[in-house]
Amino acid sequence: MKPIGHVRHDHSEVPRHWTISELEGELRIDETYLEALCDVEPGARIVVLFEFHQSPPFDPAEHQRQTPPHKDHPRGLFSICSPLRPNPIGLSVVEVLRVDGSTLTVRGIDMLDGTPILDIKPHVER
Amino acid sequence: MKPIGHVRHDHSEVPRHWTISELEGELRIDETYLEALCDVEPGARIVVLFEFHQSPPFDPAEHQRQTPPHKDHPRGLFSICSPLRPNPIGLSVVEVLRVDGSTLTVRGIDMLDGTPILDIKPHVER
Repeated sequence: MKPIGHVRHDHSEVPRHWTISELEGELRIDETYLEALCDVEPGARIVVLFEFHQSPPFDPAEHQRQTPPHKDHPRGLFSICSPLRPNPIGLSVVEVLRVDGSTLTVRGIDMLDGTPILDIKPHVER
Repeated sequence: MKPIGHVRHDHSEVPRHWTISELEGELRIDETYLEALCDVEPGARIVVLFEFHQSPPFDPAEHQRQTPPHKDHPRGLFSICSPLRPNPIGLSVVEVLRVDGSTLTVRGIDMLDGTPILDIKPHVER
């Protein structure tokens, strides 16, 4: 796995989840991938896969159930969006506001500044 | 990245995308993660992140635009679901039919038999 770019913003805190975020920020994608971005347009919702780069290592003895910040009891890890996972991959759905070269300005940020981006996919519903 | 389990099924072909799949198959998760599955229940829709383990290496000179099998013109890679990506991570949303220990029987399979599973997340909409 190799980052295709990074998340950049000036917010000192981010919401716990993209579903409750109106924060704007940038996805600065490597210019290498400029052509692969050619059909990403303002107004689109996109899926961003990224690395939870500040998470400690996953410990199966400790982290299989975790209590989310807005809940009062532990839940099985595969039913919650905790950053502490066997493979530290995060997923957020954001709205594209602007496209400038290989930088996307988006709304719905819940990633930390500096987060490595692994992939961008179209947001598809059944 | 280390698989948490593998996809298993007997279908010789799979649909090109989970949105058009009614195929059933199993997600055989390592027993190590049994407790992390405790809140995954039949009827739930889950997001499965997996490795496109049979894709050739991504070549920026060749693969930035690709023509999906059901289209007649090339599209930018980050707007399509091709398995040929800088980081070969796939995403499918499937419906859980049964839970037997650490094996989930699901509907909506579009992954090849033997596909390494990287993560399971709840399917969340805004």
